[in-house]
Amino acid sequence: MTQYFLGIDGGGSNCRARLRDAEGHLLGEGTSGSANIRLGLDLIWGHVLEATDQALAQAGLTREAFARTAIGLGLAGITTAEDAARTIAAGPRFAFASAGTDAHAAVLGAFSGRDGAILITGTGSAGYAWVKGKGHAVGGWGFEVSDDGSAAVLGREATRVALHAYDGLAPRSAFTDAVMAHFNDQPSQIVAWATTARPKDYGTLAPLILSHAQDGDAVAVALIEQAARDLGRYIRRLNELGAAQVCLVGGMAGVLTPWLAPWTRPLLATPEQDAIEGALLMAKGAGNGLSPVTSEVVS
Amino acid sequence: MTQYFLGIDGGGSNCRARLRDAEGHLLGEGTSGSANIRLGLDLIWGHVLEATDQALAQAGLTREAFARTAIGLGLAGITTAEDAARTIAAGPRFAFASAGTDAHAAVLGAFSGRDGAILITGTGSAGYAWVKGKGHAVGGWGFEVSDDGSAAVLGREATRVALHAYDGLAPRSAFTDAVMAHFNDQPSQIVAWATTARPKDYGTLAPLILSHAQDGDAVAVALIEQAARDLGRYIRRLNELGAAQVCLVGGMAGVLTPWLAPWTRPLLATPEQDAIEGALLMAKGAGNGLSPVTSEVVS
Repeated sequence: MTQYFLGIDGGGSNCRARLRDAEGHLLGEGTSGSANIRLGLDLIWGHVLEATDQALAQAGLTREAFARTAIGLGLAGITTAEDAARTIAAGPRFAFASAGTDAHAAVLGAFSGRDGAILITGTGSAGYAWVKGKGHAVGGWGFEVSDDGSAAVLGREATRVALHAYDGLAPRSAFTDAVMAHFNDQPSQIVAWATTARPKDYGTLAPLILSHAQDGDAVAVALIEQAARDLGRYIRRLNELGAAQVCLVGGMAGVLTPWLAPWTRPLLATPEQDAIEGALLMAKGAGNGLSPVTSEVVS
Repeated sequence: MTQYFLGIDGGGSNCRARLRDAEGHLLGEGTSGSANIRLGLDLIWGHVLEATDQALAQAGLTREAFARTAIGLGLAGITTAEDAARTIAAGPRFAFASAGTDAHAAVLGAFSGRDGAILITGTGSAGYAWVKGKGHAVGGWGFEVSDDGSAAVLGREATRVALHAYDGLAPRSAFTDAVMAHFNDQPSQIVAWATTARPKDYGTLAPLILSHAQDGDAVAVALIEQAARDLGRYIRRLNELGAAQVCLVGGMAGVLTPWLAPWTRPLLATPEQDAIEGALLMAKGAGNGLSPVTSEVVS
């Protein structure tokens, strides 16, 4: 008989666990390192169990309780039902286990299990709608060929327009001068940097773009407006998929929201609960039976 | 006394040498591997000398002739006078040596030493104007943040619009279907591919884009029109820098020329000579004294 419910929210930077009893009382919480399944199942289970052990200890429990625990795992990098199934298979046995992408857990939390969508804009970007028992992923295919409206893409485009200005291919502005100054006015420094820069490195330029856009710099404004249009395109699509409302989340959500078009505003909502509560709903077997990117195992 | 003139044209894929006497008679030619100085000076001198030895052998000469030979080196990757100087310093001693970027040699050849500009569009893109004894590089800062109007950027944007169509963020077309079919209709295959794809890998999609654009596919046409606008921006800038005419060269030049705007046509020219002849002009000390990206050494 299931006595405990364990929710896991794992992303690229950390993994969080929350343990509740059948009546919903909070028993314990824990935090550990990154839990994107692309990093390897052994590594992510190490982090999941590290966070779980902290939660168990607060409840005076040990892993012996797993046989009476249902776990819901929302983990970054799960993109297919096969990913979810092999993630569950690689871990210890629970009374019940459900796994899906972290976006799935986030949308369940944001709308308390009801239909809706989330749009994540941080270093990367991705949309996810949960409608009539089915999950729909939109975008989020990575920095190189996707992730429009994210900090990383904004940072890359900032270096592009700064180089255009340097070369006389497009107008200079205080903003393009500031980007070039960031690289000591040496295009060769940008070339060397771009050779190894990861998305988070490009993302570090986002505050510079935003501050100049807020000052009305035409070049910076054009970049932010493009990001807002790209997010608007996501919002429209998530709405077309049947989500009446979209929660904008992630590190760039707050700063980009003021730039969104007026038509998007009636479609935006504030999350009711966090992604760990969404993972706890998954542990209860709610809202994941038909999703293409989740899998359940009942012992 | 200088009896022989040796021209070297070295790029990312191969290195070509041509030997002439003081009257301009062709004495020999040779070809070897890539000669971009980013690959290392030992490696590129190995290739330069391999091509040179072939030319010398055809003339019945040996490296002993270097003391009576002036060499002009047009090598990819030379972006500063320091690059040019250390390239010369790393090689054997010649009666006279001049080094500069391959674009410099190309423009000297294209206009037989007179003022003008070249615009290279192949896997990457870059412009170079030679005006009143001074070279001006425009663009060519690499795939990640520059190289608009190139095969690599076209290929990357093709995958982006194909994913947009797949996600319902933008219209599908026969072209976007063809790109997805190229990846077995699996976005995850694009993600895996993009993780390691180099510019030349993205460039392999260019023929698919061009063939659909020639059939009038609206999505493919939009990509090619953007590339043509980007090349137009280069052409305008090179003209502003004082080049009355621009030679469009590289693997994409022929297929993109028909898409260029009418205003660009009076500015376009056909190269008079190849880049090796430009390097031979450098060997003669013509047109490189003031360039910021060349260096000369007289023994």
